[in-house]
Amino acid sequence: MASYKAPLTDVNFLLNEVFDYPSHYQRLSNGAEATPDMVDAILGECAKFCENTLFPLYQSGDQEGCKLVDGEVKTPAGYKEAYDEYVAGGWQGLSSLEEYGGQNLPASLGLMKQEMMGTANWPFSMYPGLSMGAMNTLQLHGDEDQRQTYLTPMTEGRWTGTMCLTEPQCGTDLGQVRTKAVPQEDGSYRITGTKIFISSGDHDLAENIVHIVLARTPEAPKGTKGISLFIVPKYLPDGKGNAGEANGVSVGALEEKMGIKASATCTMNFDDANGYMVGEENKGMECMFTFMNTARIGTAIQGVGPAELSYQNALAYAKERRSMRALSGKKEPEQVADSLMYHADVRRMLLTQKAVAEGGRAMLYDAAQYADHMVCGHLEEDTKKIQKYDDKLGFLTPILKGFLTEKGYEATNLGMQVFGGHGYIKEHGMEQIVRDTRIATLYEGTTGIQALDLLGRKVLMMTQGGAVRDFTLRMSNEARKHLTDSTLRPWAWQILKLATQWNWLTFRLMVIARKDRDMVSAAAHDFLMYSGYVYMAFMWLRMAAAARQGLAEGGDQSEDFYNAKLATAEFYFERMLPQAQGHADSMLSPSDTLMQLGNEAFAFDY
Amino acid sequence: MASYKAPLTDVNFLLNEVFDYPSHYQRLSNGAEATPDMVDAILGECAKFCENTLFPLYQSGDQEGCKLVDGEVKTPAGYKEAYDEYVAGGWQGLSSLEEYGGQNLPASLGLMKQEMMGTANWPFSMYPGLSMGAMNTLQLHGDEDQRQTYLTPMTEGRWTGTMCLTEPQCGTDLGQVRTKAVPQEDGSYRITGTKIFISSGDHDLAENIVHIVLARTPEAPKGTKGISLFIVPKYLPDGKGNAGEANGVSVGALEEKMGIKASATCTMNFDDANGYMVGEENKGMECMFTFMNTARIGTAIQGVGPAELSYQNALAYAKERRSMRALSGKKEPEQVADSLMYHADVRRMLLTQKAVAEGGRAMLYDAAQYADHMVCGHLEEDTKKIQKYDDKLGFLTPILKGFLTEKGYEATNLGMQVFGGHGYIKEHGMEQIVRDTRIATLYEGTTGIQALDLLGRKVLMMTQGGAVRDFTLRMSNEARKHLTDSTLRPWAWQILKLATQWNWLTFRLMVIARKDRDMVSAAAHDFLMYSGYVYMAFMWLRMAAAARQGLAEGGDQSEDFYNAKLATAEFYFERMLPQAQGHADSMLSPSDTLMQLGNEAFAFDY
Repeated sequence: MASYKAPLTDVNFLLNEVFDYPSHYQRLSNGAEATPDMVDAILGECAKFCENTLFPLYQSGDQEGCKLVDGEVKTPAGYKEAYDEYVAGGWQGLSSLEEYGGQNLPASLGLMKQEMMGTANWPFSMYPGLSMGAMNTLQLHGDEDQRQTYLTPMTEGRWTGTMCLTEPQCGTDLGQVRTKAVPQEDGSYRITGTKIFISSGDHDLAENIVHIVLARTPEAPKGTKGISLFIVPKYLPDGKGNAGEANGVSVGALEEKMGIKASATCTMNFDDANGYMVGEENKGMECMFTFMNTARIGTAIQGVGPAELSYQNALAYAKERRSMRALSGKKEPEQVADSLMYHADVRRMLLTQKAVAEGGRAMLYDAAQYADHMVCGHLEEDTKKIQKYDDKLGFLTPILKGFLTEKGYEATNLGMQVFGGHGYIKEHGMEQIVRDTRIATLYEGTTGIQALDLLGRKVLMMTQGGAVRDFTLRMSNEARKHLTDSTLRPWAWQILKLATQWNWLTFRLMVIARKDRDMVSAAAHDFLMYSGYVYMAFMWLRMAAAARQGLAEGGDQSEDFYNAKLATAEFYFERMLPQAQGHADSMLSPSDTLMQLGNEAFAFDY
Repeated sequence: MASYKAPLTDVNFLLNEVFDYPSHYQRLSNGAEATPDMVDAILGECAKFCENTLFPLYQSGDQEGCKLVDGEVKTPAGYKEAYDEYVAGGWQGLSSLEEYGGQNLPASLGLMKQEMMGTANWPFSMYPGLSMGAMNTLQLHGDEDQRQTYLTPMTEGRWTGTMCLTEPQCGTDLGQVRTKAVPQEDGSYRITGTKIFISSGDHDLAENIVHIVLARTPEAPKGTKGISLFIVPKYLPDGKGNAGEANGVSVGALEEKMGIKASATCTMNFDDANGYMVGEENKGMECMFTFMNTARIGTAIQGVGPAELSYQNALAYAKERRSMRALSGKKEPEQVADSLMYHADVRRMLLTQKAVAEGGRAMLYDAAQYADHMVCGHLEEDTKKIQKYDDKLGFLTPILKGFLTEKGYEATNLGMQVFGGHGYIKEHGMEQIVRDTRIATLYEGTTGIQALDLLGRKVLMMTQGGAVRDFTLRMSNEARKHLTDSTLRPWAWQILKLATQWNWLTFRLMVIARKDRDMVSAAAHDFLMYSGYVYMAFMWLRMAAAARQGLAEGGDQSEDFYNAKLATAEFYFERMLPQAQGHADSMLSPSDTLMQLGNEAFAFDY
């Protein structure tokens, strides 16, 4: 694959012209140091690390993959050195608490870093990414001793962490977890069980691996109410801050997967391993929810980053490859044929990629401002406010995760399509992006689970439609500002109409679901996709408005940049947003259209 | 992966209750022997071969892949034995001319065979499939001597064939072909050049490989008008019907691909190789078009077969795997959780797969009746009629290839999605189906090329909308029959509305395209997808009508089967067809929404 360039111009535009991050940071308790200069410097350094160290390992990591050697996982060549560089740069503790060695910068900066690293090399980024999930859990639910012992080396990056949830018989339905935790006299536990699909479950990058494990104590109630959380380190801490003797933790198998081959996915066996309870007994699931929200936003990034990477390379190819003549006449008469850029259908694919990558990035940056108020230790003092931000982020999270990973996967497929048959050949790397991105709609809750979380839990159960009312109010307030601008008016008008329609659809579903519970699950997918299309449209309106302003007032970016934003916004409203209406139509179909067929008649061999 | 079962019940339903194949066959010049009993017997044998021989090699073939050993391609274990069984069964000559050893049965039977084999093991089926392409070319354009020498052993299956079109600098744009053909005194040619992406370019299944090569003679005009077609065998025929001495043909490389790893994709080098011209000089492209149409329908099968295979396995998993409780209350209280079948969103995915597999199969069987009249040597005597059938099939071909491969790929992704995280693991085989199917939208003309062929060539240029008028007339005539049936009425009504809309859209595009040629390319993709949704809807109406009749009159299939058809039809009209309107909306957007952005401003690094 040709190259990756961190999209710093777009980031700059979003930070300063669309979302006014400088003012936002100054309102945060931990934002004083996140001055524009500091943010620039950090993202600039991050870009270099991504372009020069991580991206060059992306393709070779896929070819080599992880290997299980004598019971331990060996990562591909160059990964250890890259990880050391990552640790030396202090990247793991960027947004973590100062008292455990972090830099205490806003959570959103961590997300921006994650996006760049994930774009340059998604499988690599999973090692620190999963560790961050474990760190967040310890920050919020661990006691002081646990934080000192585990969080400090993890913040440093010397140790990493994992989340051990899934078992062979259950993934989504964690109430079926069977791993046992037997209490010992010293207050610790002995953990026994098998966990599967454990990302970064073992590797050779760090000195120790801290597993956060879901398990049941002997008298625990059945189902999710009997699950507790345990720290189970690969090596027991020696009391001096280092890894000591081995614990009863071993790798049962290394999975062979479609993609993300440089990321180790392990079956982990716990045999009477020493474990230490985190938080209260039987409250493990509640603790997990905190982790899941951050992990889901982390996964939403996988919709954006790979779309960007695929777009960059497809665009370069389309400019260079020549095939046929444009329908409107020769464009490059001196060449044997016109470049792919002159074919409208190729532009449709490239613009879709651009719209998803940039629109998705805007969605992430928009939501990240809520995360700054409440994620992981940087809690504002006003708990009512925290709850408000948590609710807002909770509503957006399944949209980000569900919609962006679906559209991101589509975008990577389009990038491959631009290459024609060459896209299918390993050499060009376009098919690797597709394979690597395919996991995004599956892990951290499938798209179906995101859809249920959104419609069933966040919209209908928790807020009786209030979440949609609040969000659409924000949309309408913004849209009304632009009704007098000749370029923006048609899009602002569409946003106003969508705001009304979204509320109406929500209301209809609420009424129907009172009598027909299956309706929630039947409508959830279409509701999720519809919501995503609308949220992305809202972001394109905001970006278009900022571009109009930038052009009028001579903003920081080039005219080309602003014009491209406006053209992409128009493309989005004219050629992508119409798909939302298909989802709106299907959404209100009776649940019978899915449920009426008996299981016996639902077959292929009659 | 668990299993594959040939869908003989559905095939039987389509043949006898939907399309009345028995009468159709009796009207063909080569159809007398294709009695219902004979067809049953052939398809039953084919099913056994697919289930017992081909399918068991599907996953192992992917794991082992093809290897290049001492300059020759070695296929995976078991492939040679399976191919020998295929040859012994006389499968290659099923629909081929009797005078060269074929069984002279209708072309549609060949397609039905191809679908089953392609479902059981797509990569395997490519060896005989490509050979069929070469055979068709020789049947139509070769002289008697060439047919005797090459077609006979190919019909037998002892030799196979390839189509050598693509070169490093061009795939779609064959006018850029550079391979040279220098005439010799004996009337033969010396061929020199490099061809890439040659499926079945080399392998160890057959005694000889007959390459059909596009090349230019020394004085040939530039572009597509200077291309001729040559037979270039791997081994020169010895005059006794066997392979003789080696020709100047060698394998330059074996491609590493995303999928179809058991199918050898080769770079072929021709170094002063002996070649024999097929058809007239400089008329090679015209000869190729015949091949392309059949190859494209062959590729359309890849939208249907893998959707079926993925559906069968996802359905089995959904019945067996238990997770969570149904939203409308416990369905299997004695179990730890309810099976996936009780979750509406899982049913949405399974029904989508079923709708694509069965709806797509119906489209293929519908179009195959036209093919029976004119494909490959079984030409009816009335040339006007042939032209009529050729035109009808020509209109449907890009819809079948473009739409079915796009939706088929989607369907295989949904099958993987039903498995959750397990879908991403190689063991279950669901990800292999996705990887293998990904090629279908790329080769034999990308979806973009199909779209241009459909809208630009078949609809606007060749028939000024007439192709749509004819087809929608057929739709309307059928739909009107069902307006008095309470179940069918809403769907019949929709078909009538779509018939009108399709014509109106075509007319609008024709008017706009007169002034703006880019509009054709800008609208083509949406037009293709819209056409596909409508064609599939028409097929679901026909199947629903046949199911109603079967229920009323006690047809050959079970009530479960008929009820499932009706439920799937309802699902299709309510939950899939609405996407067509999104395409209708986008289709008429000005071409500016794609073309306005200058190439410089179309960037990611500003």
